[in-house]
Amino acid sequence: MLKCRPIYFNNWISVMRVSKYLLSTQKETPADAEVISHQLMLRAGMIRRNASGLYSWLPTGLRVLRKVEAIVREEMNKAGSVEILMPMVQPADLWVETGRFEKFGPELLRFQDRHNRDFVLGPTHEEVITDIVRKEVNSYKQLPLNLFQIQTKFRDEVRPRFGVMRSREFLMKDAYSFHLDQETMDETYETMFQAYNNILTRLGLAFRPVMADTGSIGGSMSHEFHVLANSGEDLIAYSTESDYAANIEKAEAPMPTETRQAPALEMSLVNTPKAKTIAELVEHHGIAIEKTVKTLIVKGATEETPLVALVVRGDHELNEVKAEKIPAVLAPFEFADEADIRKAVGAGPGSIGPVGLEIPVYIDHGVKVMSDFGAGANQDDKHYFGINWERDLPEAEAFDLRNIIEGEASPCGQGTIALLRGIEVGHIFQLGKNYSEAMNANVLDHNGKAQTLLMGCYGVGVSRMVAAAIEQNHDDRGITWPDAIAPFRVGILPMNMHKSHRVKDMAEKLYQDMQDAGFEVLFDDRKERAGVMFADMELVGLPHVVVIGDRNIDNGVFEYKNRRTGEKQEIPFDQIIDFLKSAK
Amino acid sequence: MLKCRPIYFNNWISVMRVSKYLLSTQKETPADAEVISHQLMLRAGMIRRNASGLYSWLPTGLRVLRKVEAIVREEMNKAGSVEILMPMVQPADLWVETGRFEKFGPELLRFQDRHNRDFVLGPTHEEVITDIVRKEVNSYKQLPLNLFQIQTKFRDEVRPRFGVMRSREFLMKDAYSFHLDQETMDETYETMFQAYNNILTRLGLAFRPVMADTGSIGGSMSHEFHVLANSGEDLIAYSTESDYAANIEKAEAPMPTETRQAPALEMSLVNTPKAKTIAELVEHHGIAIEKTVKTLIVKGATEETPLVALVVRGDHELNEVKAEKIPAVLAPFEFADEADIRKAVGAGPGSIGPVGLEIPVYIDHGVKVMSDFGAGANQDDKHYFGINWERDLPEAEAFDLRNIIEGEASPCGQGTIALLRGIEVGHIFQLGKNYSEAMNANVLDHNGKAQTLLMGCYGVGVSRMVAAAIEQNHDDRGITWPDAIAPFRVGILPMNMHKSHRVKDMAEKLYQDMQDAGFEVLFDDRKERAGVMFADMELVGLPHVVVIGDRNIDNGVFEYKNRRTGEKQEIPFDQIIDFLKSAK
Repeated sequence: MLKCRPIYFNNWISVMRVSKYLLSTQKETPADAEVISHQLMLRAGMIRRNASGLYSWLPTGLRVLRKVEAIVREEMNKAGSVEILMPMVQPADLWVETGRFEKFGPELLRFQDRHNRDFVLGPTHEEVITDIVRKEVNSYKQLPLNLFQIQTKFRDEVRPRFGVMRSREFLMKDAYSFHLDQETMDETYETMFQAYNNILTRLGLAFRPVMADTGSIGGSMSHEFHVLANSGEDLIAYSTESDYAANIEKAEAPMPTETRQAPALEMSLVNTPKAKTIAELVEHHGIAIEKTVKTLIVKGATEETPLVALVVRGDHELNEVKAEKIPAVLAPFEFADEADIRKAVGAGPGSIGPVGLEIPVYIDHGVKVMSDFGAGANQDDKHYFGINWERDLPEAEAFDLRNIIEGEASPCGQGTIALLRGIEVGHIFQLGKNYSEAMNANVLDHNGKAQTLLMGCYGVGVSRMVAAAIEQNHDDRGITWPDAIAPFRVGILPMNMHKSHRVKDMAEKLYQDMQDAGFEVLFDDRKERAGVMFADMELVGLPHVVVIGDRNIDNGVFEYKNRRTGEKQEIPFDQIIDFLKSAK
Repeated sequence: MLKCRPIYFNNWISVMRVSKYLLSTQKETPADAEVISHQLMLRAGMIRRNASGLYSWLPTGLRVLRKVEAIVREEMNKAGSVEILMPMVQPADLWVETGRFEKFGPELLRFQDRHNRDFVLGPTHEEVITDIVRKEVNSYKQLPLNLFQIQTKFRDEVRPRFGVMRSREFLMKDAYSFHLDQETMDETYETMFQAYNNILTRLGLAFRPVMADTGSIGGSMSHEFHVLANSGEDLIAYSTESDYAANIEKAEAPMPTETRQAPALEMSLVNTPKAKTIAELVEHHGIAIEKTVKTLIVKGATEETPLVALVVRGDHELNEVKAEKIPAVLAPFEFADEADIRKAVGAGPGSIGPVGLEIPVYIDHGVKVMSDFGAGANQDDKHYFGINWERDLPEAEAFDLRNIIEGEASPCGQGTIALLRGIEVGHIFQLGKNYSEAMNANVLDHNGKAQTLLMGCYGVGVSRMVAAAIEQNHDDRGITWPDAIAPFRVGILPMNMHKSHRVKDMAEKLYQDMQDAGFEVLFDDRKERAGVMFADMELVGLPHVVVIGDRNIDNGVFEYKNRRTGEKQEIPFDQIIDFLKSAK
């Protein structure tokens, strides 16, 4: 006899008694946890640290992780991506083929097996999937193809931190698509873009898709998906009047609208012993910040130019991602050491400027239109004031080198820029032929001619999403989960159950009724004080809590408390199931 | 509004068109695949090899893997085990605590991270779980506790083979229970025993739980669960008249019922140039095999006794697992090198015997009651005949050193022994205090006194189960899946759909109807010849196939074929859904 429901129906257990569970809550905030999600995940007993950047997921945490995973899987399936599973341990020779065995930093954990063959612990799977596809796919008829996996990854972070937000071992959904033409590439990219929107919407999180830099993975087009949170590490620049949104790394600063004024001042050398920073220069010497520049010495890309100077206006911030796109600048971007600067320039970082500098100078567009400005004189404790291009120093090549600022014109042409903080939880890329060319992955087209595959890749940080959800959803008592990813949707909290038979009977009955109605319920049947049980429920963050005490039984009503709103309500016994069904 | 179904309901996609899938079947049997499951998994496109012992699961294979995983998870949940997830990368210091960092062989992959700290890739998690429990569990009130995970493991096998049957990376369910007393330990062990029976029953596999040796993991009690298959590596000895069943490694051979006869012959030295084996000795010298012994030289446990001799009757087989329990024998068991034997004994392995042997001799119980027997003379090409204990050589200490034989009395006292071949897919152990003592894992008992925890561990080879299921369920055309773990339960096979609109419409309608009825269906909508499509369906092994051709539309019936029985039936259009619901 066929079971009509898929076997996955009952895969998950939906109800649990705390007495049979491992609910390892703790009151104290762990000293080594810097961010709120890390603190709350430890306090709520969701995770435990096994070593630096390595965590075990305890039952409450794993439930959330699996729910996120399930939603990601469903949306990937719906979007037509087909699930596979690749190994975590990968042969190094594939990484040698693409050159990443050398190029990838020490985050790539390399090791040898018992036969001294080289392997890596996979931080990503472009090489493995391209190897599979070049062997299995030979004809355009098999394309486009979109494959995904949900799998444990490893990155040997130099300083793992923030709990599972930046751990070494983490759970990721990575998808890869293969195409003969740009048209289906664009279609799949759009489908994935939509799938990511669906995932984050279903998770119940406030989020924003933003244009992103393609970074070291390469390729032509890229979007990040950010969960919005004040604690986010990333800044998002968005337009107040259009759907433009970009990571600040990527957001184009507007070109200056003004033209350069003719020089009005002579250049003068000024003693500035108290001015190590722009702020101090402005404070002690009465110069307008818009009339100052910052000169930053960074590592160069070649031996001939080991150092490069980058100049932005005093009130602007250098954008490292934009800077590393200048061919003369080392990628990944790195500031020069103070000793090297002193040796090359003859002064410390507080007194550097473009006048008479013997190393290549690149300036921001905004610096190009400045006149009569101040800058370090390349002598300790001295600045030049009244500097002018062409007259006092040769004009330098200009680039977009700075972060866009709140209130500036949006690059899209509509509205002005506002800023938000976000946590990157998803990233989609068009990779072009970066990997397929290096690995010789091609198929025969309609004319029987070999064509190199176009490739896209699409990542979701599944474990990171759990931490990001908490950064967005918490208060001073604990986590305030959205219903979709709460470890349990409802908590039952009986008062003095171990003394009152009436309370015990009613709590057990409610537990059974809710089980029958298909709820996910955590029943706190411990012999603990009500205060402890309340605090645990709020810390763990179950969205809906039903309290049962002797007084309730006298009155025929349950006490209901909504975790997110804090709202309390009395609900007659016979209405509790219906009430909870529609509770939000 | 509450979704009453758990979100896991729709987690899995149940229907698929082959044109949108990655169905990488192949006709040729891959040369390097030795066993049938490995061959069929490659041919059916279930797995692909990435490196020695490392496989990717392609869509068809992953579906089966996930189904096995889901059944295992459900039964573990039902049995009251609580799911967690530990990291794959484990800090070495925990392994140092139990001494296994040194003792574990090269199967334990050891490596250093970027800060030169030692780590291992987890082949098992006793250390990590014991570390978690000693930190989280302090009181008897939290016990008993049973935790499980379903997680990727790594064992650096010296010679990975048989595909996912003995791969280096594999998916395992491992559970660990913790107890204050033997009573709850026994209860949980019994519950796990039952859960394993339930798992294998639900998977639809013929299996047998057997008593097992505890091996290097240690402990007092242990059962293995074997999927029965002629190709199985393990021999199971079971009673024809009781539920006794044991791995042959563990099954006690019966004590001899006869007593030793008085010597009747003089001992004589005989030239036996053609007798390198017992069979040759019997053939060329007319001695009964029961009157011969085999003397095997193995490595000893200490420097003082680097070699040890083990003697079993000529028609018996040495049991290595029993042998390594003798304190003087090295564990793990290893035969001595021929050079070392020759140096110590003065003869090659074909001419060794207990008479005048200068190294420690241990004999099987069956050898102790022999008289007038033949054995090697410790000179090349010579044997002694007519040997008698006490008269010709000192009596040696006797142990159970041999395999039990089909037809012998069952150790349980009821019935005789028969043999079956099996593939070990599950193993449960009572570990006692092996790990908890070494790692100082204790809790306060009712009297506030610290007690060392008792521990059990329970493993299922999830990925291995897939291969074992195929070893048991296949024919010369491919895999014959049980319904519960088939990648899809039903296949739709339209003939000439790309030429006949009627066939296409009917096939699409059936695909939609079956989807609405909740079936898992694979719809072969490729432009392939019917023969290719039939062969693929049979290779991949879908249990139920519905064929649609123009002839069928004329007659109003589908053609149904049962993969396991080969039975064909015509089913009227309007009855197909009901028919398939109850099809087995």
